[in-house]
Amino acid sequence: MLLRNFVLCLVLVFSNILSISANSAERPGLILTAEGVKSIRENLGRLPLFDHSVALAREVVESEISAGIDTPIPKDYSGGYTHERHKKNFYVAQQAGALYLITQDERYAKYVRDMLFQYEAMYSDLPVHPKPRSYARGKLFWQCLNDSNWLFYMAQAYDAIYDYLSESERNQLNSNLFRPFADFISLDNPQFFNRIHNHSAWGNAAVGMIGLVMGDQDLINRALYGLSSHDGVDMLAKDNDGGFIYSPDGRAGFLANLEEPFSPDGYFTEGPYYQRYATYPFIVFAVAMHNVRPELKVLEHKNKVLLKSVYTLLNLTDADGEFFPLNDGQKGMSVANGSLISAVNIAYFYGNQDPSLISIAEQQGRVMLDHSGLTVAIASRDSLSSEFTKSSVNYSDGPLGQQGGVAILRYGKEDLTTVFKYSAHGLSHGHYDKLSYSLYANGTEVIQDYGLVRFVNIEQKGGGNYLPENNTWAKQTIAHNTLVQDEISHFGGQYDVSSQHHSELNFFDASKPNIHIVSAKENNAYPGTSMLRTLAQIKLPELDNAVLIDIFKASSDGEHQYDLPLQFLGQVIETSAKTSMSETLAPMGADNGYQHLFKEATSIATAGTQYMTWMNSGRFYTMTTESMVDDEWIYTRLGAKDPNFNLRRDAALIIRRKGVGNTVFASLIEPHGSYSFVTEGSNSPRPHISSLKVEHHDSDYTAVSFTSPKQKYILVISNDSANESESHSIIINGELVKWDGPYFLSPYNIN
Amino acid sequence: MLLRNFVLCLVLVFSNILSISANSAERPGLILTAEGVKSIRENLGRLPLFDHSVALAREVVESEISAGIDTPIPKDYSGGYTHERHKKNFYVAQQAGALYLITQDERYAKYVRDMLFQYEAMYSDLPVHPKPRSYARGKLFWQCLNDSNWLFYMAQAYDAIYDYLSESERNQLNSNLFRPFADFISLDNPQFFNRIHNHSAWGNAAVGMIGLVMGDQDLINRALYGLSSHDGVDMLAKDNDGGFIYSPDGRAGFLANLEEPFSPDGYFTEGPYYQRYATYPFIVFAVAMHNVRPELKVLEHKNKVLLKSVYTLLNLTDADGEFFPLNDGQKGMSVANGSLISAVNIAYFYGNQDPSLISIAEQQGRVMLDHSGLTVAIASRDSLSSEFTKSSVNYSDGPLGQQGGVAILRYGKEDLTTVFKYSAHGLSHGHYDKLSYSLYANGTEVIQDYGLVRFVNIEQKGGGNYLPENNTWAKQTIAHNTLVQDEISHFGGQYDVSSQHHSELNFFDASKPNIHIVSAKENNAYPGTSMLRTLAQIKLPELDNAVLIDIFKASSDGEHQYDLPLQFLGQVIETSAKTSMSETLAPMGADNGYQHLFKEATSIATAGTQYMTWMNSGRFYTMTTESMVDDEWIYTRLGAKDPNFNLRRDAALIIRRKGVGNTVFASLIEPHGSYSFVTEGSNSPRPHISSLKVEHHDSDYTAVSFTSPKQKYILVISNDSANESESHSIIINGELVKWDGPYFLSPYNIN
Repeated sequence: MLLRNFVLCLVLVFSNILSISANSAERPGLILTAEGVKSIRENLGRLPLFDHSVALAREVVESEISAGIDTPIPKDYSGGYTHERHKKNFYVAQQAGALYLITQDERYAKYVRDMLFQYEAMYSDLPVHPKPRSYARGKLFWQCLNDSNWLFYMAQAYDAIYDYLSESERNQLNSNLFRPFADFISLDNPQFFNRIHNHSAWGNAAVGMIGLVMGDQDLINRALYGLSSHDGVDMLAKDNDGGFIYSPDGRAGFLANLEEPFSPDGYFTEGPYYQRYATYPFIVFAVAMHNVRPELKVLEHKNKVLLKSVYTLLNLTDADGEFFPLNDGQKGMSVANGSLISAVNIAYFYGNQDPSLISIAEQQGRVMLDHSGLTVAIASRDSLSSEFTKSSVNYSDGPLGQQGGVAILRYGKEDLTTVFKYSAHGLSHGHYDKLSYSLYANGTEVIQDYGLVRFVNIEQKGGGNYLPENNTWAKQTIAHNTLVQDEISHFGGQYDVSSQHHSELNFFDASKPNIHIVSAKENNAYPGTSMLRTLAQIKLPELDNAVLIDIFKASSDGEHQYDLPLQFLGQVIETSAKTSMSETLAPMGADNGYQHLFKEATSIATAGTQYMTWMNSGRFYTMTTESMVDDEWIYTRLGAKDPNFNLRRDAALIIRRKGVGNTVFASLIEPHGSYSFVTEGSNSPRPHISSLKVEHHDSDYTAVSFTSPKQKYILVISNDSANESESHSIIINGELVKWDGPYFLSPYNIN
Repeated sequence: MLLRNFVLCLVLVFSNILSISANSAERPGLILTAEGVKSIRENLGRLPLFDHSVALAREVVESEISAGIDTPIPKDYSGGYTHERHKKNFYVAQQAGALYLITQDERYAKYVRDMLFQYEAMYSDLPVHPKPRSYARGKLFWQCLNDSNWLFYMAQAYDAIYDYLSESERNQLNSNLFRPFADFISLDNPQFFNRIHNHSAWGNAAVGMIGLVMGDQDLINRALYGLSSHDGVDMLAKDNDGGFIYSPDGRAGFLANLEEPFSPDGYFTEGPYYQRYATYPFIVFAVAMHNVRPELKVLEHKNKVLLKSVYTLLNLTDADGEFFPLNDGQKGMSVANGSLISAVNIAYFYGNQDPSLISIAEQQGRVMLDHSGLTVAIASRDSLSSEFTKSSVNYSDGPLGQQGGVAILRYGKEDLTTVFKYSAHGLSHGHYDKLSYSLYANGTEVIQDYGLVRFVNIEQKGGGNYLPENNTWAKQTIAHNTLVQDEISHFGGQYDVSSQHHSELNFFDASKPNIHIVSAKENNAYPGTSMLRTLAQIKLPELDNAVLIDIFKASSDGEHQYDLPLQFLGQVIETSAKTSMSETLAPMGADNGYQHLFKEATSIATAGTQYMTWMNSGRFYTMTTESMVDDEWIYTRLGAKDPNFNLRRDAALIIRRKGVGNTVFASLIEPHGSYSFVTEGSNSPRPHISSLKVEHHDSDYTAVSFTSPKQKYILVISNDSANESESHSIIINGELVKWDGPYFLSPYNIN
């Protein structure tokens, strides 16, 4: 309620201010300002990064001008011709507009004008798009989301040639194309426009941008605050990806979309893949507001969360700059994406001219064709760049930062990176993956998060949209690296339930050089069971590589079957326990993702230290764990019940423990050695850690020992105390162990 | 017999010449000659490539000198400590020897001397190696092969410090270490030393090298001509990889090993992976002979086949310089391997100073520390390099070039590369893969040859040796891209039978810009059945990419089941026929490799054009084929009966046709479009070739049509006439088609 009142309050304040007429605005005004244009023209030909970007734009635009404008009657899903054509049109128009302003070559303005009038001629007769799949069908595209993309880019193209057009041309475009277009994606599609969701962020920003160009106060208000009425809508309606359409308290519009999904740390609850997608409209519209309505301080909103979110996003990447595929995320998406180029340029220009952003821009190799891009290019030319260093970091989730979070542990220059997710559900793109983690070594995925099941924009694969296996596999708990109780996903796989809960931080500490550690708990995923996971990256002086310790404690009154999967990537090199191969492969279960898993082989481990070594991209990795009597190791292969080959045939090792209530799974992941296919030399193909043991566990403490070639160590965790100065003492193996703070790592000389 | 007489004749001629005393030889003399050393010293510090190579050697040697010499009692298989330690010792000693000559720093000479005397102290008491797996166990290593490696490198180290040692030291080493060592791998192991095989090439060269250093004529004779007596050996004995140990006509020794496995085109019958392995002793010993016994003209032998073979080897690589894994070959092995560095340096220096070899050396980034490496470094400094261009080429197999061969079709700058194998069996490392092919696009494997099942030097995987699945899977016909009749491998999988036969070239033509084509036949793999395969890479003006046409004709009196596998790499995007998924997966068969295949899904194709599109590394590929009624498409997954996870879980599509005698499988592989995971843009995800049809086939001719968006085409093949001027005419679809030569490609306007 507090938040709602705050937003309503903003509405009142802003409404009174928004009375500047569009006609008085300086042109261009949105992103490429008159001042920016002047500065760009003065510097043209002297800035390698900027000139290269202009050349790239020219290449695309000239090629399109030669090919001629095509605005086909919409009919395809993404990946199909009409979809890709309209998508390319708005991108090229935006680039052509920028080139017109930069070069003053009227051919570019004419190209944009001609294209706009082709759209103007067709739009009023266009029915809703013929493809039925979306909960909010567009007109040019199968979903309003893509129509919003179109409007957002076209608004910039329109702004660029605004002064080139006659007043009657502008009136014609406004009346027949832009205003009806904006009304269609908002008034006619409240279920699209009035959500808290990346879809709506696009819709809001698009309506706002065209409102700024047209000087249409009504559209600007609608963009900032959403539709005023929810009359006649079903507040519990869901979209086709399973997410709620309306916020329970009726908040909507750009500011609410900025307020709710971003945590104070700049973490976007849908995850980095969708943050990347929404970053462009969020940031660019905020800048347009800053330029045209600076008094509204949209860019400064929520303690400058938009600028802060750029850093968060850059930190949510592996060593190659690829985003961690938390929730629904397509692997391979990286900081090279266009939306990150604008984000980095804007964060530099409108932020604190941080030199480390210049090094990112230089990696990207391209800048925006505006004042921010120019400034970045100047800084690059003047060698004002410094390294962008990624460290261990903990990001809160939730509007107020109180809904769990995501922690990243990093050792060295991303030699080892652990991504730990203990966040809220993450809206409709969230997965049932509480306390899951993934592991990277120098940009190589070692223990994976599967990502999504979708081939974005490849039409043959279900129109490029989410495939059924995204729900039946990718979202399920067993598809991740976290505990599954009784073969059921967290929260029973129910979105409505999961959305009400979040995990909670126990503690996070990255202040010491030899250990970075995070601990979090989840008490709601399985009613009656509490789960506590602690992950610690430890650098022992005697080993070349840091290791990861994973302590997963489950506490339940009843007896359960627990499955702890290890989604390792690579080929099995050796297992300590003898495996027996299944003669024929059958799906492991009927539901919760198990229907997609074949059981390839099993082994019954004896009690004590067990291990499995695998090889991935010329390096060796070993998982060393303490096995309980009758623990079953199940080697699985993905791909059952997958008639259209939508799933990768990835392996996993599931450690299954039956008939227990309170138990601890403790293991250690050790990267070791290397293999060269050119010299055929193998270096340290065997692990150095020789044993691992849970020395103690009760409701308050968990203690795990492990042995390197030089020394035995013990790591003790306070299960429920994050206080750094609190003193603890327990008796382990008959000896008193004392320490201060939530954890304790020490050599341990008791056998 | 002709060959044998020739070799015997050489024996006589050479024996008379070999009478120069070792004491008169200039030191050093083998590889690093006195002249070379002088020239190196003069140029030191002025040649980036050479200086870098010296620095790399220094780094390794200095680190080893600091660590101290260790010559442990042998006990391990490859990958284990003692194996890897002794292996490193001989490499470091060789480098230290070269550094001594270059820098005159006596620390290096002392290091080599101390190591040699540690070996001298242990050798006389060493029993045969404790590990029993080899047919010829060594003393330092589990197989004589590795002992030969040791001797070959150590001979060079010894040569380098020869003058540094006193005469009594030399006598001590000769009597207690080198002569017994050479005798052990030759006299005591005739089954190792007297073969035609890469093992023996190493053995021969090693004995020859130490013979040259010691001035021991007996050893040199033994190296060149083998052991004179076969008394008491089993001429039909086989080694542990299934190959015959003795040549049927008793030839042996270095010259026979040079004479027999190399074709006049420089193709090595074991394939490029083993050619790479044997290249080092072949070429380096030949150079040593050239330096010490120039009058024997070993380097010029067989029309300079050794120098020619370097070019052949460089051509048997993909765009990334990785060797095609024909026969047993570990993927990833490339021209970056050390043996290729010496081969390229020597081919430049002792050949025609070919500037294109300099560009390869520059890619390798390192040169030999001898006169040839110096010369290459000078050429590089003087910018005398030109591009090494790989074109379509046909290499004969067999000592006289009459045992089939290997053809490579290349389009553009290796945009599309087809590797077609119609060779002899290839000795003990050969596979049952007559008329198989593999396909590469810009260095990406698109349709694969599986390679071998071995993790070379990774001890946990069977001591780093060949694994059982190499025989049960990798060698079998179904593991390749060629026809399997009645689920039985070629020649019944019998090495003795396969070794007696080879395929035969029909024709090869790479003279036209728009079509490169090869056609070959195999009449012995399945008695009573003849197989003819024609592969043509065709560049149509209307398509961006070249396509591959594959016409496989089988002719048999009886009725059979034919399986034609497509070992595609990547993920299935779309299939024209609906697939039905297997509920549970069972092995497809009991033998011939089928026991390792799971049947994941099947579809029954209707007659006419059918296709399957897949994606690999951001590109799309489509196989378009003409299906017959009741053709079954079987989607397989490798991994059945693989308890130790030795096999990759690769996919294949098997087209199965039952109950036919004479039939044609015609298909077309089309690379098309692209996908970016950063922009998420898909370009041309659908194929352009829309239909494919066998228009005609009889014993003389096969005609296949295919349709691009612009035009229908026909390709007609003469099944049995390679004559370029012969005129042909047939009636197809009621129309007369006339042409000259073995094939005919033309637009075709009949529907």
